[in-house]
Amino acid sequence: MINFGRGVPSADLIDVAGLAQAAGAASTANADASFGYGSPAGYQPLREWIAARHGVDAGSVLVTPGAMQAVALAVDLLVGGEDGTAGEVLVDRPTYDMVLRALAARPVTVRQLALGREWVEPVAVPGAAAVRRCVYAVPTFRNPDGATMALPERELLLERAALEGSAVIEDDPYQELRFDGPALPPLWRLGGLEQVVHVSSFSKTVCPGLRVGYVIADETRIEGLIAAANRTYITPSMFAQAVVHRYLLDGGLDAPLQRMRTELAARAELLCELLSEQLPQARFERPQGGYFVWLRLPSTLTASTLAAAAQRHGVVVAPGSGFLVDGGGEHCVRLCFAAEPPNRIAEGVRRLAAAAREADTREADTRESGAPGGSQQAAGRPQLGEEAVLADPA
Amino acid sequence: MINFGRGVPSADLIDVAGLAQAAGAASTANADASFGYGSPAGYQPLREWIAARHGVDAGSVLVTPGAMQAVALAVDLLVGGEDGTAGEVLVDRPTYDMVLRALAARPVTVRQLALGREWVEPVAVPGAAAVRRCVYAVPTFRNPDGATMALPERELLLERAALEGSAVIEDDPYQELRFDGPALPPLWRLGGLEQVVHVSSFSKTVCPGLRVGYVIADETRIEGLIAAANRTYITPSMFAQAVVHRYLLDGGLDAPLQRMRTELAARAELLCELLSEQLPQARFERPQGGYFVWLRLPSTLTASTLAAAAQRHGVVVAPGSGFLVDGGGEHCVRLCFAAEPPNRIAEGVRRLAAAAREADTREADTRESGAPGGSQQAAGRPQLGEEAVLADPA
Repeated sequence: MINFGRGVPSADLIDVAGLAQAAGAASTANADASFGYGSPAGYQPLREWIAARHGVDAGSVLVTPGAMQAVALAVDLLVGGEDGTAGEVLVDRPTYDMVLRALAARPVTVRQLALGREWVEPVAVPGAAAVRRCVYAVPTFRNPDGATMALPERELLLERAALEGSAVIEDDPYQELRFDGPALPPLWRLGGLEQVVHVSSFSKTVCPGLRVGYVIADETRIEGLIAAANRTYITPSMFAQAVVHRYLLDGGLDAPLQRMRTELAARAELLCELLSEQLPQARFERPQGGYFVWLRLPSTLTASTLAAAAQRHGVVVAPGSGFLVDGGGEHCVRLCFAAEPPNRIAEGVRRLAAAAREADTREADTRESGAPGGSQQAAGRPQLGEEAVLADPA
Repeated sequence: MINFGRGVPSADLIDVAGLAQAAGAASTANADASFGYGSPAGYQPLREWIAARHGVDAGSVLVTPGAMQAVALAVDLLVGGEDGTAGEVLVDRPTYDMVLRALAARPVTVRQLALGREWVEPVAVPGAAAVRRCVYAVPTFRNPDGATMALPERELLLERAALEGSAVIEDDPYQELRFDGPALPPLWRLGGLEQVVHVSSFSKTVCPGLRVGYVIADETRIEGLIAAANRTYITPSMFAQAVVHRYLLDGGLDAPLQRMRTELAARAELLCELLSEQLPQARFERPQGGYFVWLRLPSTLTASTLAAAAQRHGVVVAPGSGFLVDGGGEHCVRLCFAAEPPNRIAEGVRRLAAAAREADTREADTRESGAPGGSQQAAGRPQLGEEAVLADPA
């Protein structure tokens, strides 16, 4: 199976030799701290490393078993229903499917809209019951579609959220994976730590299998998150965090980042070239960073049909509907270009194109009506349907 | 600080050299699986190792980031309030404080009673609204008091739970840490996997800092737990689990268990001897295994006063009230004998005895009324008050 479906780095993107060396050093140099329970706040030297890199105090940092767990803790802290009243979470459209699943398992209401452009009525309406609300956004190289909020969109989001007193959770694991050009300021730099809880991870840049993510937030919120972490998993894996710390201490983050960026840029370019050639009926934006291409299919081809046909051809894609709460995305699929090396990307696109030819109803109709072969040439090039263009406003 | 307060193994009980070797091997021999995201079910070779050791299928095993996270997932699965109806959790009296804190953060009702002896009315009362209930128990070398349910108590618990259709979560991390004599069958062997969700851990036997626990349950429940794990933390740390697997593969679990048992037995004996000598006013049962001694104080000395005085003397203890939901435990403290090596246990008891002399109101009264010194000899040996005997029915 060639897997474009999961947002993971392929094994060859992971510096196994460097991590093995770090694991050896973490096992011996600071063994008591590596193998003991430690603190729910995380491995202190890594806390301090992250704090120094971002220019904050270590008290503003919590190191977690992955970013997803951090988002869940932050949602519970900001709008959690411990007292029985359920809060509301505004999420971007589209947004990260795993967070949607985490939210669905919580006593919160989820509202989805294009955060930098649309907004719902403020929650602090005079005379109405107060609703606790927080905002969840992946502003940079968004999962699933790779979109990045422009500066005015970021400012609008923060301004609207500030007006109603809603805190913002910024999930930002792809921020440092920009292929080239200047970075936009993350939300927490624009809005400050009073407003923004910043979540990130080493999963997309160093290694996912260690499960090390982190939160940067104001110290009061970090204290609340530490207490919640403690009653959720006691402490995170000190050893995993000690390995990451040792790895960063030995080689820094810049070299691995640069290597990852170069590789990802090459894969993104390859994928886009091949898609243009072999799936000309689909549209997409060329990503500027991150892990994903968001493919918009013609109106004659749904994502679920394509995904099923692709599966038969030995390639996995993620249908767009998983990233949307109330329908939509039926003609979109997410392709991750990080999970497979170039030769398999090429083979994957060949398979995907074959699956698309097989699954496209217009081509199938053509075949049924007796036109020869069902090849793209025979069927003509289907136009991108209005439905596909509108399938997702983002 | 000498720490009797936390249920952790001291650093010298951890086989750092063996774990370092395992970490090296896990980094190189199976690097892709160790450093990749892997499966929410856990590192497959470790799943299979646990399954083989317990004679179940790997499909009945979930490997988690620690046992605490496993208990939380199991509670949510069995009585979770996703649909808005809160279930009930029956817990033992006393019980593990961290689980009480995890339950307090969930939309469930907690009822605490001596599980093997008392029982509340069945939840399936004819004509009454059905309540989902599950039972949480640490049947062997219970945290906090080291008590072990006798076989008739186990049978009674399972029978009562079966009568009302309640599933039982058996939290069993100390089961293999019996100093000598034959083990009692765990609840899941008596009641079967239809009734019992068995949770355990390598934290108390191999190393806490890796955070590797596990669940044994029927396959349908395991599937539910895997889905919940996935939306909670995506996947656990594959690397941490690969290190544990490699460690077990290289040396087995029996040798580390035997070493741990021998050390713990020696520490327990030392602690009990010194307590008898230096705190004769307190009572306790000699533990047969596990990590804990539960100290019952005289009526003239509360746990909170003792804990505060002990802190000033440089020793930490856990007051009993943390292990009880609705009061009680005011004259009990939990002492962990695993967390400190013998020389520090001896010094810790000296400090604790000094703190007790200082904090005991009867002795303080004696001092105030002019008796010389406030020493134990001068004050006489206070009797264990009825209040202390009754403070905790367990």
